[in-house]
Amino acid sequence: MRSMASSRGNIAAIVGVGPNLGLSIARKFAHEGYTVAILARDLGRLSEFADEIAREEKAQVFAIRIDCSDSRSVREAFEAVSSLGAFNCAQQVLPGMVERGKGTILFTGCSASLNGIAGYSELCCGKFALRALSQCLAKEFQPQGVHIAHIIIDGLIGPPNRCRGPSAATTTSRGGGEGVMDPDALAQTYWHLHVQDRNAWTQEIDVRSSNC
Amino acid sequence: MRSMASSRGNIAAIVGVGPNLGLSIARKFAHEGYTVAILARDLGRLSEFADEIAREEKAQVFAIRIDCSDSRSVREAFEAVSSLGAFNCAQQVLPGMVERGKGTILFTGCSASLNGIAGYSELCCGKFALRALSQCLAKEFQPQGVHIAHIIIDGLIGPPNRCRGPSAATTTSRGGGEGVMDPDALAQTYWHLHVQDRNAWTQEIDVRSSNC
Amino acid sequence: MRSMASSRGNIAAIVGVGPNLGLSIARKFAHEGYTVAILARDLGRLSEFADEIAREEKAQVFAIRIDCSDSRSVREAFEAVSSLGAFNCAQQVLPGMVERGKGTILFTGCSASLNGIAGYSELCCGKFALRALSQCLAKEFQPQGVHIAHIIIDGLIGPPNRCRGPSAATTTSRGGGEGVMDPDALAQTYWHLHVQDRNAWTQEIDVRSSNC
Amino acid sequence: MRSMASSRGNIAAIVGVGPNLGLSIARKFAHEGYTVAILARDLGRLSEFADEIAREEKAQVFAIRIDCSDSRSVREAFEAVSSLGAFNCAQQVLPGMVERGKGTILFTGCSASLNGIAGYSELCCGKFALRALSQCLAKEFQPQGVHIAHIIIDGLIGPPNRCRGPSAATTTSRGGGEGVMDPDALAQTYWHLHVQDRNAWTQEIDVRSSNC
Repeated sequence: MRSMASSRGNIAAIVGVGPNLGLSIARKFAHEGYTVAILARDLGRLSEFADEIAREEKAQVFAIRIDCSDSRSVREAFEAVSSLGAFNCAQQVLPGMVERGKGTILFTGCSASLNGIAGYSELCCGKFALRALSQCLAKEFQPQGVHIAHIIIDGLIGPPNRCRGPSAATTTSRGGGEGVMDPDALAQTYWHLHVQDRNAWTQEIDVRSSNC
Repeated sequence: MRSMASSRGNIAAIVGVGPNLGLSIARKFAHEGYTVAILARDLGRLSEFADEIAREEKAQVFAIRIDCSDSRSVREAFEAVSSLGAFNCAQQVLPGMVERGKGTILFTGCSASLNGIAGYSELCCGKFALRALSQCLAKEFQPQGVHIAHIIIDGLIGPPNRCRGPSAATTTSRGGGEGVMDPDALAQTYWHLHVQDRNAWTQEIDVRSSNC
Repeated sequence: MRSMASSRGNIAAIVGVGPNLGLSIARKFAHEGYTVAILARDLGRLSEFADEIAREEKAQVFAIRIDCSDSRSVREAFEAVSSLGAFNCAQQVLPGMVERGKGTILFTGCSASLNGIAGYSELCCGKFALRALSQCLAKEFQPQGVHIAHIIIDGLIGPPNRCRGPSAATTTSRGGGEGVMDPDALAQTYWHLHVQDRNAWTQEIDVRSSNC
Repeated sequence: MRSMASSRGNIAAIVGVGPNLGLSIARKFAHEGYTVAILARDLGRLSEFADEIAREEKAQVFAIRIDCSDSRSVREAFEAVSSLGAFNCAQQVLPGMVERGKGTILFTGCSASLNGIAGYSELCCGKFALRALSQCLAKEFQPQGVHIAHIIIDGLIGPPNRCRGPSAATTTSRGGGEGVMDPDALAQTYWHLHVQDRNAWTQEIDVRSSNC
């Protein structure tokens, strides 16, 4: 899942949107006044998400079908899981961000970004490579005003828990599933990374449930 | 520099306060309604900081003299720079946080937390150990509701730049010193870590200027 | 550069052989009594290497042309530099090693295996992914007796320095190029990894010149 | 456990010697012709080790009582487990090594050198700090000819298994305890690090059983 937001014209594109994290991030950026583009393979489901966000957040939301893999062979499947998809996406948005001297690209990693797992070499190769990509692009493009960060989500993401009381913001226990992360809570951290002052940008951050 | 905040009674203690990062964090927590205790060796300077924050943020601020080292021998100086000071501080506040089931402890590291530097073995040993302490305490106390995070500040921190226009929050260039971080901007990230939902807690985050 | 050695039948295959590290490793394994297969794109040069080793070490050496990329498009170039080539190679030799319950696969990384570099995202993605592959295969196949290690060569490799006296093995300064590694010295470490007892296997090791 | 060897005069000092790893390293260096000094708290046991090595390896072995902690208070216990003991030891031998332009210092870490463990903050702080010390000293003293390396032993070390046949060197299974490392096998890697050419020095290496 990758998020790219540009403050000029207030457009946020979220690539690889499913019902949890991607949807929560799209909703958060819409809530903050951004025009949102959500991209994934399943256009039917994506359109439902777009309608839901547009209705609830009074925002403009575009659903766009994308197939990062578009592949038939094993070789191409390998690329899809690898950082090539991310690389292609970044290639699309970086020139405009550099021209405007601002923009944010957020890459999503997981525990497989840091440690190999027996039997999961494709996942791990792809996630290690994505982390490399994030570091390379940060070093190249941050001096030009484009913030590039890598979020390591260490654990499972559940559905959002929206049945909470008013002052739950700080450290109240939510009693949700044991060790399952709330995508709305994760979206707050994505948003924080986006609004960080360029004098104090994060390149890498991890996130996990308190129960882990 | 270590920050410990408890939302019960809204007290934030900042240990090792100087004119830049510590002061900015104290000011941010005061601004958000916290009673603030600032601790350092130089009580005279500390009292000036306390008066300044109290006046500008209409907050209650306590200045407390602390000497983490209190030492004369090289051995004790080693301890001071090491994680022992941090360990002692954490020991003071953890029991209350565990009892209340909430609280935040934020430890500040730097590039010496990750890589040895020729001729700086005391600094590096202390910073590596502080990172270890942060990981150990996080694994032990996060399930009990205490959020423990380690912020790696990779670069120099300058004085705050407060002469900016209104909508500078997002990604506007600030034109400050080249590669020098604004402590007010860093304080925003400390605050964000404190208000993270316990379903999505960060254990480690790095921060640097876009010009690095 | 990847090395794969099997003690059954004493065959060592070195993939990606050039005049420095690959050649030194081939020579070392030949010297220790292994039949050696060297693989690279340039069959002419490879044949000269094979003749040289066969003559000097009285060993059987096979030169085999291999084109890991065999590609024309940018996409395929990306694969070549990525871990896919390594993955394909490992796929060829692992089944036999598992069947025999022994074998060694050594992957060669560099500083780009650990840190992103501005403008080198293809190199870094590939090297990060290769490290992931090494960790995944180690976790999966080491319990079955196949030793898989990743050597991070941090610096430049020069031509071998063979003009030294007899007992230079230990810690004698060699006065070679400043900060340039001797491929014969590196080959000693590759050999040591191969002969490590399976009760004490290394997964990752770094190597650099003392002058760095 | 720390090992320091100087090829001038062929003296190897092993600090913190117990019946497994320390004893195996002492035996290996004695076997290679070194005069060996073994240091630990329990002089009685140490003397038995010295007699055993002297008899079996026809080597000169000195048993020296050392108490790295020599402490009564918790504070001092913290230091003992920390890198201070290692720092003191290194301070003793570095000047002579620098003067001679050669020498090797090998520090022993474990999994607690890399990751915090709940409830083990003293161990982890000490092991993180030891790793920092190793990196700092390497960067400072390697250009002067002193090789400094950090071995991360990831797992339990059992008693040595000496009942093996002749050609067990390579990859033969030893059938020892499941996942327990053989200290004699580890000592081979310590020896290899000591004899590495200074054009290709390792700073960090991990070791574990194939069964992990």
